[in-house]
Amino acid sequence: MFEFEIVAQQGRARAGILHTPHGPLPTPVFAPVGTQGTVKAVPPRDLREVGATLVLANTYHLHLRPGEDLVRELGGLHEFMGWHNPILTDSGGFQVFSLAEINKIDDEGVTFRSHLDGSMRRLTPESAMHIQQKLGADIIMAFDQCPPPTDRETVIKAVERTTKWARRCREAHPDDSTQALFGIMQGGIFEDLRAQSAEALLPLDCPGYAVGGLAVGETKQEMYATLDFSVPMLPESKPRYLMGVGDPDDLCEAITRGIDIFDCVIPTRLARHGTALTADGRLNMRNARFIRDTQPLEEGCDCYACQNFTRAYIRHLVAAKELLAHYLLSVHNIRFLIRHVQAMRQAIIEGRLEIYTSEFLNRFMKKPA
Amino acid sequence: MFEFEIVAQQGRARAGILHTPHGPLPTPVFAPVGTQGTVKAVPPRDLREVGATLVLANTYHLHLRPGEDLVRELGGLHEFMGWHNPILTDSGGFQVFSLAEINKIDDEGVTFRSHLDGSMRRLTPESAMHIQQKLGADIIMAFDQCPPPTDRETVIKAVERTTKWARRCREAHPDDSTQALFGIMQGGIFEDLRAQSAEALLPLDCPGYAVGGLAVGETKQEMYATLDFSVPMLPESKPRYLMGVGDPDDLCEAITRGIDIFDCVIPTRLARHGTALTADGRLNMRNARFIRDTQPLEEGCDCYACQNFTRAYIRHLVAAKELLAHYLLSVHNIRFLIRHVQAMRQAIIEGRLEIYTSEFLNRFMKKPA
Repeated sequence: MFEFEIVAQQGRARAGILHTPHGPLPTPVFAPVGTQGTVKAVPPRDLREVGATLVLANTYHLHLRPGEDLVRELGGLHEFMGWHNPILTDSGGFQVFSLAEINKIDDEGVTFRSHLDGSMRRLTPESAMHIQQKLGADIIMAFDQCPPPTDRETVIKAVERTTKWARRCREAHPDDSTQALFGIMQGGIFEDLRAQSAEALLPLDCPGYAVGGLAVGETKQEMYATLDFSVPMLPESKPRYLMGVGDPDDLCEAITRGIDIFDCVIPTRLARHGTALTADGRLNMRNARFIRDTQPLEEGCDCYACQNFTRAYIRHLVAAKELLAHYLLSVHNIRFLIRHVQAMRQAIIEGRLEIYTSEFLNRFMKKPA
Repeated sequence: MFEFEIVAQQGRARAGILHTPHGPLPTPVFAPVGTQGTVKAVPPRDLREVGATLVLANTYHLHLRPGEDLVRELGGLHEFMGWHNPILTDSGGFQVFSLAEINKIDDEGVTFRSHLDGSMRRLTPESAMHIQQKLGADIIMAFDQCPPPTDRETVIKAVERTTKWARRCREAHPDDSTQALFGIMQGGIFEDLRAQSAEALLPLDCPGYAVGGLAVGETKQEMYATLDFSVPMLPESKPRYLMGVGDPDDLCEAITRGIDIFDCVIPTRLARHGTALTADGRLNMRNARFIRDTQPLEEGCDCYACQNFTRAYIRHLVAAKELLAHYLLSVHNIRFLIRHVQAMRQAIIEGRLEIYTSEFLNRFMKKPA
């Protein structure tokens, strides 16, 4: 289980297959986010139809509601949410820092106030493991501290704490046979701190590693530069995960630099804001220029939304605040990102990744005339 | 076109087929409501999957947004909303009285303030026809005045006005070859006024007639009693439509009394309130008793929600205010009403409608122990 086969390489980029208890996962892979045990507005069968293979769910949210004990009692997360393909859960650490009111962070763990009911809660490396074990995802994540990536003093402390916490996670989850524990490297934008973090984590022999602490406020150039020196610090033979990244241009840059796994709320969040992703950039479907536009969201897209509806209709749904707008835009945006990542996988296999990404970026980043 | 075949009768109840330009419509039929050109939260392919054959759209809403000229330019309502089966539009009259701030009602028409942007608008029998002609539904409705059904003085005036308006609608829409104009009988709960309304409308020789002015505040017993004397006043050979009715018990009572066509927002509105329709009555999915309930919403239901998800999961989605809750409950509730009406059609064909309705009502109306 969790064997990672690399089927092709081009430069640092790889096309692979990660074997999981819920089937093989071709990589690079983009995972839509099902925060509360559902990818917002998209039924599981539609997710499969658009080619989703991996879904991320949030430990923090599921711990607060409905609770990991109930999810386990109901057969685990796959059964609960009707998604029988691979699932990844995060550790809850990021949400504790971003959503909850933090009461206290210490070397033992984090005490915080639930954003739902104000109750006081505590997460530790051990409890983050136990919660994720009960949820039952295929891939689970170490409990880490994710600091602002350019604040060197804070990053130094976060690397130390993340290292200690990772060891405790490993002790609480020593066996990867049914759930793979991925370590999370910290270190902000600093090469020496990244090296220190990697060096400390590699002895834990995790089946995969994430480059953590990125896409949280640094510039894109800082993120790419950090990937340039960080990715080679991680084992060649194991999958590498860049958490929270899903901008189409970032996917190009990160896959080129050797990342295999991504997750992001962007396709569903943009959908709820009335925005479509296309090869020519984002379309704000509120825009009056779509009132009479009989084209699909994207010419040539094979998704249900593009095969059956015009931009004019979707604009109407967005203007009228209809629920169907969320569904159609989510289906399209997820399909767009999955097709994009699938195209890069194929390009790696065919040795033409650079051609694909430069053509994609030229078109996607071009400012409209 | 719009030939109505009666394939079986039991008492006053009929099983029929209404032929339309978008295919044959087996009756009795329940139409989910797509107010703004979409049945809330349910994509057209899912509507077809749950057996929907006819969808109602609201003239008032589509007139205000996106406007009938745009819908026509985009190929008409079927093309616009991606629903290639029969569509029925109402006249806008009911919404003008219920949603808009009425400025003035006179014998010519109604001046009102749009609930969307406050603009002053006017609807007349003629404009209601022209709007519906541009929208392009298979069945269009006469512009009527729908008064409180128990206020005799107001009902008398409404019958007179509705009669005059129906004649003007007929003049503005004399040809039923591509769109059938249905007349609407008024008269409240008063037998003599119903008779007067029917007598005045029958010479217009519409391909179908609605019993209007019910389900707007009278008791269920008053509604059933009104159907008892009103339905026989309408032509045996033409389809009869009871507007705005969709409670499962009302469907039993009205089909028994000879009604063929229904529409109602109830399945989608209940869904948005977290309520499921089942043979044992309504389930409020917020209820804590469903927390660990691994049953489907309804045992034996063949809908996607019941085939794939537990009550416990749907309760979680409702509690977490997830969009998927609206979808799953809407799909189930529409399927429930369509199965119910289909079962009555089959029962009429097999001459056992009374048995079906008494068993259904016994179970559905029983108070939980």
